[in-house]
Amino acid sequence: MTEMTIQSLISAISPLDEAAMAAARLRQDTLTKPRGSLGRLESLSIQVAGITRQATPGIQQKVVTVMVGDHGVVAEGVSAYPSEVTAQMVYNFLRGGAAINVLSRLYGARVVIVDMGVATDLAPHPDLIVKKVAHGTANFAQGPAMSREQAIQAIFAGAAVVESEIARGADLFATGDMGIGNTTPSAAIAAALSGLPVAGFAGRGAGIDDAGLNHKISAIKRGLEANQPDSRDGLDVLAKVGGFEIGGLAGVILAAAAHRRPVVVDGFISTAAAMIAVSLAPQVRPYLIAAHRSQERGHDLMLEWLQAEPLLDLQMHLGEGTGAALAMSLVEAACRTLAEMATFSEAGLSDKTEE
Amino acid sequence: MTEMTIQSLISAISPLDEAAMAAARLRQDTLTKPRGSLGRLESLSIQVAGITRQATPGIQQKVVTVMVGDHGVVAEGVSAYPSEVTAQMVYNFLRGGAAINVLSRLYGARVVIVDMGVATDLAPHPDLIVKKVAHGTANFAQGPAMSREQAIQAIFAGAAVVESEIARGADLFATGDMGIGNTTPSAAIAAALSGLPVAGFAGRGAGIDDAGLNHKISAIKRGLEANQPDSRDGLDVLAKVGGFEIGGLAGVILAAAAHRRPVVVDGFISTAAAMIAVSLAPQVRPYLIAAHRSQERGHDLMLEWLQAEPLLDLQMHLGEGTGAALAMSLVEAACRTLAEMATFSEAGLSDKTEE
Repeated sequence: MTEMTIQSLISAISPLDEAAMAAARLRQDTLTKPRGSLGRLESLSIQVAGITRQATPGIQQKVVTVMVGDHGVVAEGVSAYPSEVTAQMVYNFLRGGAAINVLSRLYGARVVIVDMGVATDLAPHPDLIVKKVAHGTANFAQGPAMSREQAIQAIFAGAAVVESEIARGADLFATGDMGIGNTTPSAAIAAALSGLPVAGFAGRGAGIDDAGLNHKISAIKRGLEANQPDSRDGLDVLAKVGGFEIGGLAGVILAAAAHRRPVVVDGFISTAAAMIAVSLAPQVRPYLIAAHRSQERGHDLMLEWLQAEPLLDLQMHLGEGTGAALAMSLVEAACRTLAEMATFSEAGLSDKTEE
Repeated sequence: MTEMTIQSLISAISPLDEAAMAAARLRQDTLTKPRGSLGRLESLSIQVAGITRQATPGIQQKVVTVMVGDHGVVAEGVSAYPSEVTAQMVYNFLRGGAAINVLSRLYGARVVIVDMGVATDLAPHPDLIVKKVAHGTANFAQGPAMSREQAIQAIFAGAAVVESEIARGADLFATGDMGIGNTTPSAAIAAALSGLPVAGFAGRGAGIDDAGLNHKISAIKRGLEANQPDSRDGLDVLAKVGGFEIGGLAGVILAAAAHRRPVVVDGFISTAAAMIAVSLAPQVRPYLIAAHRSQERGHDLMLEWLQAEPLLDLQMHLGEGTGAALAMSLVEAACRTLAEMATFSEAGLSDKTEE
């Protein structure tokens, strides 16, 4: 786990396949519908063709990777819920009772729960993957959230999860997160990388009041001041003001792209992870599929920084990968229409352009 | 089939059930997520509770009703495709090759194809329901598209389809349409009912050029001038400038509401049908679920007139019920999260409001 190997992960990410995209575009124009009338489903199908190098990509196995971690900065009074809820939610995931479980069942996706750094030791469970970097991050308002080595370790843990899921057949990934307090490091990452004011990224999270919001803004400002993260170095930003689950998600994104699998990026926390990934490897950008516009303040600015247009806007702000699970189904719809619709000639239909 | 029976269909539509909505709202606030964090999925689940009178409504069987008809006004050069394509597309539907077939397979919905007024006689097929009112409408640029009796017949045919599908177990409906030229009567309906200028509703449909667009605007203006539809009488508007499939869809919407089944309204043509339904029975409004914002010009104005906020905006403009099929899946996601998520107490979770 060295920076050299991070480089090898990054250098495995190549541009989208132009030939597959051209073939998909050509096929879209022969399908029995007015050209362009499936809108973003068409562009999505072409993007997935470019990612997968397949003219008519199929989606066989969808996986939502829910990365979980705790945050020392919660001591600053930045969250509406206590840190214990992180572990309690892991047990809820493992029992199938959370929103992401319900949506994944509906859409036939597998949910993978990864302990990236929960503060307590969790009871072993066959469906729980333990990649614990540490028992929660340090309070970044006072010093670095983690060491540079831990940041690298978190990214590699995420990449390893993707690689093992690909070995099991996964061909579409969605990112999800759980971690009480994790809108705070996400906002810090967004402010550090974009250079925009902290207040524009500090929202209500799971529901803090005005006092909590002030604590949050103050903690982020002190954290950026104390740690001076280098905005040109995503690893430094992750280490100084990030989180273990955020590093894990950055690893998921980088590894999915390296293995030419599309990755659907959920809301605020996942988008902060995508910003880390893009700052490390700008060429990962075309592999990203932005799931939805979260209600959390500043998410729109993060999407702008990524130059990503989200698929959905359902006023959600739950995390866990819930927006991504809904959007995965749109990716599937895009690929299925491209692959399964009849062409004008198959249907014996008058194409106006052939008249 | 008299106006008296239209009245009995309309009077069967009662307000949403406040008790079921209150129960659903209460349950949403006990589920393991920050309150309100599922955004529109939450409000959707509460709406469906009110429609179905069930605190935790289940969706067992989804049906997309694709209503098909031809249009005399095509003689005015308003469409990019010839009328023969309507029948060709019916055969494409019956072979499962159209976009709506692919999406319905993906989401486990049943597609019901109804010949409401195709210009030619279609070959019999076990999956084709024939409710043909006539072999296409008359050219409304020169006189009424159909008689008042035919308008009533079309509405009842749509209602009958819904009733027979409910008997087979359907509990969620989506509207879909096919009919070369049918953005033209839809635009005429929207202009007549809203009183807004014709040009604001006249778009490119399946892809007409500038000359076609001018023909379209001219035909609609002449039609409204020649027929003088009464904007306070939805039946009159349907008869003077409507279409058989549009009347059928209005019947689908009214009957679904009368039987307390939610109905997902697709794009431009379906929304014109919803305007007819609302003008006949304003109390149908809360039963409607607007699927998506179509790219077709003026659809946003129609949604505003309906006071409906669409769920999706994917730059689509295909029709067939494709937007509605995607949105049906969101309705299902809404109901499933409401019914299946664990509550804070079931999960043994610290609810901040209980601290």
